[in-house]
Amino acid sequence: MNMVTEVSPKFSSVIRALDSPLRVELVKILLEKPRSAPDIYQTLITTGFDIGDRDTVYKALQMLVDAGILEKYYEMAVKRICYRVATKRILIDIPTLDLTAST
Amino acid sequence: MNMVTEVSPKFSSVIRALDSPLRVELVKILLEKPRSAPDIYQTLITTGFDIGDRDTVYKALQMLVDAGILEKYYEMAVKRICYRVATKRILIDIPTLDLTAST
Repeated sequence: MNMVTEVSPKFSSVIRALDSPLRVELVKILLEKPRSAPDIYQTLITTGFDIGDRDTVYKALQMLVDAGILEKYYEMAVKRICYRVATKRILIDIPTLDLTAST
Repeated sequence: MNMVTEVSPKFSSVIRALDSPLRVELVKILLEKPRSAPDIYQTLITTGFDIGDRDTVYKALQMLVDAGILEKYYEMAVKRICYRVATKRILIDIPTLDLTAST
């Protein structure tokens, strides 16, 4: 039997990144405004979101960066690495199981 | 702090449904042509896909139906319930964390 198509690595990494309440919460927090990692961590605690440790949050941020949903940049004003949302729309084409992200 | 938006149940169910090699494989198999559940199960075995039991496959199919990615219908020609792909495009809007599926 012929497989129709392979799933692109992008498809897997984006879907996996969005399949987590913590990671979706991080996107929500960054939709408000870009923030540094310590600011994000503090915001999660303030909103009462049930997280493990700092490392869990940093790994979750990195997974979203790797998937292209977030990006890291150096914010001159606060002299810190900050995170912001890098993708506005994600289109999944089912017949090809392909995924396109746009800004 | 104001949360930007709640994630829709549709968002969660579609993303969850696609975050699984078995479920993506089921979509691939059904992109070729609609099939009955026993036919799908047999096809998986033939392609050497590592599955558990029949029940695992049927639950995976149902999760894809619940997410609106597949649909069940009665196929007159073979007098069986069959599955087919019901969605062509899925659009995820990041600013609203909303998801739209179209046929």
